[in-house]
Amino acid sequence: MTAEIICVGTEILLGNIVNTNAAYLAEQLAGLGISCYYQTVVGDNGERLLETLELAAKRSEIIILSGGLGPTQDDLTKETVAKFCGKKLLMDEKSKKQIAEYFEKRKMKPTENNWKQAMLPDGARVFENHNGTAPGMAVETKKNKFILLPGPPEELKLMFEESVAPYLKEQSPFVILSQTVKTCGLSESFVEEQLRDLIDKQTNPTIATYAKTGEVHVRVTAKADSQKEASKLIKPMVKELKSRFGNDIYSTDDGVTLEKALADLLQSAGLTISCAESCTGGLISATLINVPGISELYKAGFVTYSNKAKRKLLGVKKGTLEKYGAVSSQTAQEMVKGLLAETKTDVGIAVTGIAGPDGGTKEKPVGLVYISCNVKGKVTVKECHFNGTREKIRRASVTTALMLARSCVLEYLSKEILK
Amino acid sequence: MTAEIICVGTEILLGNIVNTNAAYLAEQLAGLGISCYYQTVVGDNGERLLETLELAAKRSEIIILSGGLGPTQDDLTKETVAKFCGKKLLMDEKSKKQIAEYFEKRKMKPTENNWKQAMLPDGARVFENHNGTAPGMAVETKKNKFILLPGPPEELKLMFEESVAPYLKEQSPFVILSQTVKTCGLSESFVEEQLRDLIDKQTNPTIATYAKTGEVHVRVTAKADSQKEASKLIKPMVKELKSRFGNDIYSTDDGVTLEKALADLLQSAGLTISCAESCTGGLISATLINVPGISELYKAGFVTYSNKAKRKLLGVKKGTLEKYGAVSSQTAQEMVKGLLAETKTDVGIAVTGIAGPDGGTKEKPVGLVYISCNVKGKVTVKECHFNGTREKIRRASVTTALMLARSCVLEYLSKEILK
Repeated sequence: MTAEIICVGTEILLGNIVNTNAAYLAEQLAGLGISCYYQTVVGDNGERLLETLELAAKRSEIIILSGGLGPTQDDLTKETVAKFCGKKLLMDEKSKKQIAEYFEKRKMKPTENNWKQAMLPDGARVFENHNGTAPGMAVETKKNKFILLPGPPEELKLMFEESVAPYLKEQSPFVILSQTVKTCGLSESFVEEQLRDLIDKQTNPTIATYAKTGEVHVRVTAKADSQKEASKLIKPMVKELKSRFGNDIYSTDDGVTLEKALADLLQSAGLTISCAESCTGGLISATLINVPGISELYKAGFVTYSNKAKRKLLGVKKGTLEKYGAVSSQTAQEMVKGLLAETKTDVGIAVTGIAGPDGGTKEKPVGLVYISCNVKGKVTVKECHFNGTREKIRRASVTTALMLARSCVLEYLSKEILK
Repeated sequence: MTAEIICVGTEILLGNIVNTNAAYLAEQLAGLGISCYYQTVVGDNGERLLETLELAAKRSEIIILSGGLGPTQDDLTKETVAKFCGKKLLMDEKSKKQIAEYFEKRKMKPTENNWKQAMLPDGARVFENHNGTAPGMAVETKKNKFILLPGPPEELKLMFEESVAPYLKEQSPFVILSQTVKTCGLSESFVEEQLRDLIDKQTNPTIATYAKTGEVHVRVTAKADSQKEASKLIKPMVKELKSRFGNDIYSTDDGVTLEKALADLLQSAGLTISCAESCTGGLISATLINVPGISELYKAGFVTYSNKAKRKLLGVKKGTLEKYGAVSSQTAQEMVKGLLAETKTDVGIAVTGIAGPDGGTKEKPVGLVYISCNVKGKVTVKECHFNGTREKIRRASVTTALMLARSCVLEYLSKEILK
């Protein structure tokens, strides 16, 4: 079963909004095991939409459209699909009643054009909208199924979950299940090399790699007759990946980010953390604090961008700054030592570097960053050479700092166990 | 001149990433006055990409492609465009040298497939990549111009700015010039209302509004035979906007962000700044430090997520925390007073709030944030009620804090002038 996605809206073509609907629908389709080979964006223009529909109907069985179901004259999706399928628009009394109720509940009066939203192609299957007024629908022809959804993301998502996913499952004889194994600190080419034999002979489950800043994710996907069977196919592959990548895997849970994995590790070990940042300017703290409930572990952060702040707040020695400079292994060490002395936390992360675009020299070029970690007195410093814009260097520094903290804590814990 | 956008990548079709490239490119094309009627996403599949190219070449003059320029076998964009245009791929020595330098700088060894990135269609115009290894290019035929850009957003954006925008400007018989008037603290509907008369009678220049978090940008675009003429058309409109929105405009320069505008204001007034953050967790400092050269003004930042840190680092009174709570106007005031006492800077920003998803109560719901600003002893506190996810609440807090600092500094300066 193949599908394609058509998003209708001039505001997407003008770049006024980012097309998150396409990403959401694509992810949902992949999760249902429905192959999707195309996404198209077309404006609020009947002629161009009709051409797009003609092409899509030739190459895909299921066509999911979002947008253009509103009450104004611009909104043409339903009208164009009805025209393409040779169906009349008829008033749907149930939808009309629901629109009336929606306005009544909000003590508002519907305008005449609101009733346009209850006009549906003859024989359409209606999907109720519990977050707005425009009903969604499936319009079927001999060859195709057109699924029409409202444009506002919160309306589209709820409708997909409640009505479209069950509708699509009815059409498919299979269950598709996937799990993501997330690694950090490895390059994509290294990961692929390690998986070459598995990739070459893959059938069911399949495996695929995805690179993010400092991370590589491996997604394992299985197709089976039931959830249970699909799960059974995935399990041994995930086990195999775990044995190959060991501690370089920080999570096998789709919803867990690197910062969440670090927070979970600290929490399970009963360790607290603090940060001292120069070139990252608070971004490591901000990333950690993105994890809800971190307040139990995260105690304090310092943004010591100036030398004065490094000295006053972290006790970095004047002599160290003069002899080795603010961007040096020595300064990074003193920062993270001073940090733990000041905050009395178990773990500290410190960063000092040159994010650019200015401030680089031949000896210390833009992109040189020292990251240090202190776990109960044991200090590790990592010298990094990053490339790219100020923004990119800072992002890479944050990910590397989180990875370093994770590996230092793991090392500390493994030694604790041996004691 | 019409264009369309083709984004190549199976990861977009699977919904693993949101297609921000399409939105960026669409906005840029609109800004250059180039009409764009379609966006298509297609996977890393030569056959389907070729079909997509054939269709696009029929209906649009300029075809902008992103993605698929990487070193692996999956990456097919260049090969497919060359095939469609009937051109051979040749080694580009300059690009080869740049790739070698990129790896040398990082002390890494290129693998054999990295040289694939230097193979370019015969006669292509090369766009250098200053954020990665894959060069971009323009491939021209009699009827079409294909512009191939790398997929990673930071590479694509820099390349567009540096090379593609100038290239596209060359193609047009007209000069399209636009200038953005950036306001903060106003709603989009308010801005539109204020501009209604101008929007209704607009011809050349045109004006359009774009809403961002806490900001509304008004873009003035003129079309003329020369840069000078276009500039002449824009000038009076920008002047009119300035007279309508006054100090709510923080910049009329496309490249100036709100944080940059604040930094410039502080610099011109000779004022230094520091931050103390609770729920934003370092994000305000990180945003300010995004401005190159800020080290002269930005002195230090504290992430005081815990009550203990608020007391120890900023001197917030135990009694205040007990009586009013950590999220209160009183605590925000004491934070920003303590901050200036500690850092001896002229201006301080402090934030305390509930970013959620937990921690809200009926009296103090998720989204309640107090933002305070201290300019040489004069403290202003703003109570805010934000909606949405943890991430969204934190982003809104950062923008509001920067706006508050800007308006407090402006107020201080206007009083100084009167003295």
